[in-house]
Amino acid sequence: MSRRKLFGLGAAGVAAVGAGAVATRSLLEEPVARAASTSDPVPFYGEHQAGIVTPAQDRLHFVAFDVITDKRAELVELLQEWTAAAARLTQGKDAGTFGAIGGSPEAAPDDTGEALGLPASGLTLTIGFGPSLFDDRFGLASRRPAALADLPKFPGEQLVPEISGGDICVQACAHDPQVAVHAIRNLARIGFGKVSVKWSQLGFGRTSSTSRAQSTPRNLMGFKDGTNNMKLEDAQLLRDHLWASGNDWMAGGTYMVTRKIRMTIETWDRTSLSEQEAIFGRDKGAGAPLGRKAEFDTPDFNATGPDGQPYIKADAHVRLAHPSHNGNAHLLRRGYNYVDGSDGLGRLDAGLFFIAYQRDPRTAFVPVQTNLAKHDALNEYIKHVSSGLFACPPGVRDAGDYWGRTLFA
Amino acid sequence: MSRRKLFGLGAAGVAAVGAGAVATRSLLEEPVARAASTSDPVPFYGEHQAGIVTPAQDRLHFVAFDVITDKRAELVELLQEWTAAAARLTQGKDAGTFGAIGGSPEAAPDDTGEALGLPASGLTLTIGFGPSLFDDRFGLASRRPAALADLPKFPGEQLVPEISGGDICVQACAHDPQVAVHAIRNLARIGFGKVSVKWSQLGFGRTSSTSRAQSTPRNLMGFKDGTNNMKLEDAQLLRDHLWASGNDWMAGGTYMVTRKIRMTIETWDRTSLSEQEAIFGRDKGAGAPLGRKAEFDTPDFNATGPDGQPYIKADAHVRLAHPSHNGNAHLLRRGYNYVDGSDGLGRLDAGLFFIAYQRDPRTAFVPVQTNLAKHDALNEYIKHVSSGLFACPPGVRDAGDYWGRTLFA
Repeated sequence: MSRRKLFGLGAAGVAAVGAGAVATRSLLEEPVARAASTSDPVPFYGEHQAGIVTPAQDRLHFVAFDVITDKRAELVELLQEWTAAAARLTQGKDAGTFGAIGGSPEAAPDDTGEALGLPASGLTLTIGFGPSLFDDRFGLASRRPAALADLPKFPGEQLVPEISGGDICVQACAHDPQVAVHAIRNLARIGFGKVSVKWSQLGFGRTSSTSRAQSTPRNLMGFKDGTNNMKLEDAQLLRDHLWASGNDWMAGGTYMVTRKIRMTIETWDRTSLSEQEAIFGRDKGAGAPLGRKAEFDTPDFNATGPDGQPYIKADAHVRLAHPSHNGNAHLLRRGYNYVDGSDGLGRLDAGLFFIAYQRDPRTAFVPVQTNLAKHDALNEYIKHVSSGLFACPPGVRDAGDYWGRTLFA
Repeated sequence: MSRRKLFGLGAAGVAAVGAGAVATRSLLEEPVARAASTSDPVPFYGEHQAGIVTPAQDRLHFVAFDVITDKRAELVELLQEWTAAAARLTQGKDAGTFGAIGGSPEAAPDDTGEALGLPASGLTLTIGFGPSLFDDRFGLASRRPAALADLPKFPGEQLVPEISGGDICVQACAHDPQVAVHAIRNLARIGFGKVSVKWSQLGFGRTSSTSRAQSTPRNLMGFKDGTNNMKLEDAQLLRDHLWASGNDWMAGGTYMVTRKIRMTIETWDRTSLSEQEAIFGRDKGAGAPLGRKAEFDTPDFNATGPDGQPYIKADAHVRLAHPSHNGNAHLLRRGYNYVDGSDGLGRLDAGLFFIAYQRDPRTAFVPVQTNLAKHDALNEYIKHVSSGLFACPPGVRDAGDYWGRTLFA
């Protein structure tokens, strides 16, 4: 019996994974950047940046840069060059105008070449500006949004500064890792002398759905993750909780929080099934809230079992993370599993690279994570080792526009 | 214009990548373990282990274990347990008999669960035994094959002991990284207390074809890699150069060499196209040997250009690695690109995880690498940082057989 049959997933359910094209368009109130298939391009231009509500692709290469030039004009020029390259790369073209072999043989190629022959693969490139960009180097201090307030220190976190923060981030998502890696590498190459890679992270196996057309994937603890995520079909929720409002430079943008969450999976793997399910508050097979039957059943936090105890314990992850316990806080999660090899102590270095978008981290990620960091039963098995916070500007409207124009112009 | 069109790859060429099913079966003299599609299972039982001539899947998770038990019986028992798990996992089933949710809720699940609902994805698991297993712990010293001679120290290599060697390796290849990661993790879990993960490596974007049905992929230097690789259709070459002969325990097995080759890609990316092509001895677009027209044209090492100089220089990679310059040495290469994030110095930590199979490394990898290490123009841009050598036993014949039976029985 195959895993597919064992868990009652029909062929249709499997086929829907990653196939954004089957979304029910009639549910949408506004157009969303999406590819028709996993090899096709996602439109680059639009009101919002692609790669946020775009149905989550299967692979990630995330990079954080430090800006090493102190010249504002050079930074703006780089953002313009990057935008032009991103518009090409996301459409399955080379990074540079002349491609890898169209230029002079005596010059370095415009493109590094490893994606030659590969389709666009749903590549999206999404930029964000970190708090450190708003210091006095580029005259941006007065333009730092209030919502880009430094995150508080959370109980238990063990952040490694070398893989946290950064002046600028770029999130590359694609269905082919070679395409995502190629894009980040070529942006780094274009930025030579102006930016330096501070840290980067590869991920696979998206751990959230961002569309109802996608089945819910599993994290490395083996549980379905992101069942209750905001999805692109939730137009009202997105307006209320995802996109920045107002008339300033961030209108149409959003705020991104990243957390690298190491899992002690060897310990987790020796935990009983009932304990694992109690910690998440969901069953492991179908992903149903405890006490309910199906994955998308609404959790009943008051229901009690035959023993008089609540099906979903007080310290269960699903309870503590739920909007109803966090002042109606909603996040659009878009994380990925990661394995960075092993740690030299006989253990896999693995976990979740959490990415979440929201209108204002102060009323979304911060209260949720404060609640989780204090009470979540899962904390015994996880450790936050890196953190990032970025303001993601609105989308690039057309070929005359560029990433961050509303901030710099 | 898309990359696909720019380089003249027809839709057929792109579609063939990874689609082993379209191989011309009439070329084959013996059955080869392969999947019908990228989601289907590859047969586990056979004369040879799968994952060697199986058309190379797109993703890799490679692990090297140290054996920490000193009891031979425990090691044999583990190999039997692993074999049973591998037979299940490669067919898209759970690692254990009862699956993640079929056992007692008070026990830890037999399977870690993150592949629930995913298809087999062409998973292959291939085991190898390192020289260190043949010390005096398990009574195997007298059974160490002559061909498993320690590799010599090569000029310029900078091996890191912590990510080199290992008593036992397992190569997991699949079309979905989550499936490959799941398999390695569950083998590690089954081996708890008997083996410890020494190092592991993820890879993507296979850098060689092992079948003529596959198009040649590109390495992270942007060049097609593995054009002249031995392929599963080369039945005579495989008999002469891949599979161990004789009547000892290795009959039907083969020897694996791994090398993690870091590329200084930022430096490479600033090198001119003509210099890059001179170093490889091939053009970057089509992959043709210099002086010829098409990728699979035979290199002419004597041909000279209008300037009287050879098209393919004396220190070009394609010349130095060619069988005609290495006593007719042939390798079956099966490597993967890797990106391990960045290195803290503003550079991507990226390169090639080289894997090669052969009948005898003393007459294959060793002379080729000796030649390359001394003369290859590419050495300016690469660094060997890890090395592994493993004897891969013959295939598991049926459910009564196990990995390494011919060695231990």
